[in-house]
Amino acid sequence: MSLQQLKQQVLEANLDLPRYDLVTFTWGNVSGIDRDRGLVVIKPSGVSYDKMRINDLVVLDLNGNRVEGDLRPSSDTPTHLVMYRRYPELGGVVHTHSTHATAWAQARRAIPIQGTTQADYFHGNVPCTRLLSESEVSEDYEGLTGHLIVETLHDTPPLTMPGILVANHGPFSWGKDPHDAVHNAVVLEEVARMSWITHQLNPQAPALPDYMLEKHYQRKHGKNAYYGQNTK
Amino acid sequence: MSLQQLKQQVLEANLDLPRYDLVTFTWGNVSGIDRDRGLVVIKPSGVSYDKMRINDLVVLDLNGNRVEGDLRPSSDTPTHLVMYRRYPELGGVVHTHSTHATAWAQARRAIPIQGTTQADYFHGNVPCTRLLSESEVSEDYEGLTGHLIVETLHDTPPLTMPGILVANHGPFSWGKDPHDAVHNAVVLEEVARMSWITHQLNPQAPALPDYMLEKHYQRKHGKNAYYGQNTK
Amino acid sequence: MSLQQLKQQVLEANLDLPRYDLVTFTWGNVSGIDRDRGLVVIKPSGVSYDKMRINDLVVLDLNGNRVEGDLRPSSDTPTHLVMYRRYPELGGVVHTHSTHATAWAQARRAIPIQGTTQADYFHGNVPCTRLLSESEVSEDYEGLTGHLIVETLHDTPPLTMPGILVANHGPFSWGKDPHDAVHNAVVLEEVARMSWITHQLNPQAPALPDYMLEKHYQRKHGKNAYYGQNTK
Amino acid sequence: MSLQQLKQQVLEANLDLPRYDLVTFTWGNVSGIDRDRGLVVIKPSGVSYDKMRINDLVVLDLNGNRVEGDLRPSSDTPTHLVMYRRYPELGGVVHTHSTHATAWAQARRAIPIQGTTQADYFHGNVPCTRLLSESEVSEDYEGLTGHLIVETLHDTPPLTMPGILVANHGPFSWGKDPHDAVHNAVVLEEVARMSWITHQLNPQAPALPDYMLEKHYQRKHGKNAYYGQNTK
Repeated sequence: MSLQQLKQQVLEANLDLPRYDLVTFTWGNVSGIDRDRGLVVIKPSGVSYDKMRINDLVVLDLNGNRVEGDLRPSSDTPTHLVMYRRYPELGGVVHTHSTHATAWAQARRAIPIQGTTQADYFHGNVPCTRLLSESEVSEDYEGLTGHLIVETLHDTPPLTMPGILVANHGPFSWGKDPHDAVHNAVVLEEVARMSWITHQLNPQAPALPDYMLEKHYQRKHGKNAYYGQNTK
Repeated sequence: MSLQQLKQQVLEANLDLPRYDLVTFTWGNVSGIDRDRGLVVIKPSGVSYDKMRINDLVVLDLNGNRVEGDLRPSSDTPTHLVMYRRYPELGGVVHTHSTHATAWAQARRAIPIQGTTQADYFHGNVPCTRLLSESEVSEDYEGLTGHLIVETLHDTPPLTMPGILVANHGPFSWGKDPHDAVHNAVVLEEVARMSWITHQLNPQAPALPDYMLEKHYQRKHGKNAYYGQNTK
Repeated sequence: MSLQQLKQQVLEANLDLPRYDLVTFTWGNVSGIDRDRGLVVIKPSGVSYDKMRINDLVVLDLNGNRVEGDLRPSSDTPTHLVMYRRYPELGGVVHTHSTHATAWAQARRAIPIQGTTQADYFHGNVPCTRLLSESEVSEDYEGLTGHLIVETLHDTPPLTMPGILVANHGPFSWGKDPHDAVHNAVVLEEVARMSWITHQLNPQAPALPDYMLEKHYQRKHGKNAYYGQNTK
Repeated sequence: MSLQQLKQQVLEANLDLPRYDLVTFTWGNVSGIDRDRGLVVIKPSGVSYDKMRINDLVVLDLNGNRVEGDLRPSSDTPTHLVMYRRYPELGGVVHTHSTHATAWAQARRAIPIQGTTQADYFHGNVPCTRLLSESEVSEDYEGLTGHLIVETLHDTPPLTMPGILVANHGPFSWGKDPHDAVHNAVVLEEVARMSWITHQLNPQAPALPDYMLEKHYQRKHGKNAYYGQNTK
């Protein structure tokens, strides 16, 4: 895949954010990575989706040096870069302030695994990070937000838990490419909405048992998966 | 009706799922049956609605043997087949993860009969199943989900209760044909939404008395029905 | 105004119900009255809005005798007729199952007057009726629903309280003409939604004081009204 | 900028209210000011957005004398004028009855600062005013509503808190021009919605710590801001 093709993918993935109703104004950003070249393509900061053109996208190396583009990259760029450096399996990263996922982040609560909808994508509760300390914020806010995500995932393979809530901020999600990362952002917002309603109907609603979680997660992602057309 | 006409009906009924805002991505499926030929037409697994063509639909006999179509049928196919085999009056079956109905399923609560909106379609509370056991899930998850629905309906005629909540999963609905089954899926989602709001306004809201339930159900479905233009 | 013009008004007012998102399928109806001729125009029963043509509308006298139209009128027609006979100032009547207003009706709670939005249209709490008894339902369900509304309004001039919740059923609204009645149905749904959210944020939220209610109601409807362009 | 250009801006800003789903019918108004000429342009009272033309806008001096336009200005005009006279930095003012912000106003609760979404625009909790007294309402309701906002802001620079909830009424917002004021009205409605959901998920959700509030507010508005493309 050429860098131009990746830029086209990242552009389309960014335009999907308003299409799926995940953003107000410019409150979201998608990036993608070309692993061979070690280059990351990301949305410019504060540019509205309806005015964004392919050449407005910013190309950076993994250390954040600008390689292409005249605009300033998203202020969340250091968070994306930490994720790409830490997890070689990631091809796309997304940050939004989607309504329901952000509300869970503000409530500082993990989204509990209560149904098969979540189990089809997330291998358990969607975690909520701790809050960065004052010294962390002043030292390197956006970079340490990335490390906070890594700390919270601990030893979870990131593609089995393709999203997280950053406390008092909002959701990040990721995937094998920019399109897949946005797909997971849509799912995260929808399960956040379902779990909010579930919580109101029954604050003591039980968790999905492990055997149901495994059944749904594996029938879609396991080695004997039988959901969809491209399974093994 | 020719098989081709049924396929057209099933295609349109599937496309109605996103039109009525019942699905995210591919999270839903509709089937229909040709009782004379004993053939079921169903959505292929994991194919998005905007790319689905009539020849992508899969035709199966009632034992699940593929008769037409190159794609893999919906992973929920065994559930549909159990319903068709058990209830000869069914002409269409739908499964979705519609937001509010799924939330009730996650809360493991029946939708109580609290208003005439529900009484116009559902002859009482919309039940929520028990959870399948670990051995049931490993034995035949999708087939036993169908038997679970049958077990929960017990001796209720299915067209008088044209929908159900499968615990921690989501709603199934059905009807005399695929279009009718989708119609009932829309109603189920709307009564799930209304009952959620009702529950928040008054957790002790009383049930609709039986005489009101009967009045509304019978004026629409009884032998002296006087709602609509095609009544007796 | 000719009867044809009234039919056109009633058609447009019915088509406004889906436009303002007040109805699912055919769950609503609007009527209008020609006071000079003593004729009421109303939606036919169970006909979908996108297929309804002007000649599908049914014309009745105030006793319910059909004067024009081949279709069966809305099953709620007797309720509309009671309202027109009792209140000569009414020119249009609407019934819907709009989501939030219906939820309040199912909760059997009046919508409390908590803000100027409601005070601009409704001179106080929007009342919720009692439930009809079993003998009332079997005697004349739809007609006695009209009398129930009249009983609940008691001595309130209906144009100062242009809507009500029928317990466990849904909202009725009215106005000086069909368009105005739909306008009030939209307002009723929106104040029902606002009051639901208010209730969740503060179950003890105080009522709007009388002097604020009077100020807002009178600046729009009083003899010295100064809201809008057509005031005295 | 010519007066005609300001009128065009005010027209577009008013039309943005329905576009961003902030208003039902005519329940909102935007004004803008030409500081050099001392002239305010504002929406006419009770005129629907789809029929409003540029020459329907009303031009007033800062004392409320009509300079241009045949229509009566918005009934909330005196509130706007107080804001412009008191705060020379304001270029636009907006009033709406947007659903969630109005619900907080009806609950008589400030919107707590619980996330970075709010911190990006509002330097702390969005305050809710006290209720005007009966004598204040009868003396000069709309003018004293403006003074009530000023009283509530106290010594807060208004562009650091570009919105407020007027108790039992609804939100007002403002900005450096009419477009910016509407932008802030959209943000206010969205943070009101997020905070409502947060409150339901965790009524004891903690406030955003000051150092996070400062970080987000300053990275966007401070002298070393690095969000967006036009920062210093």
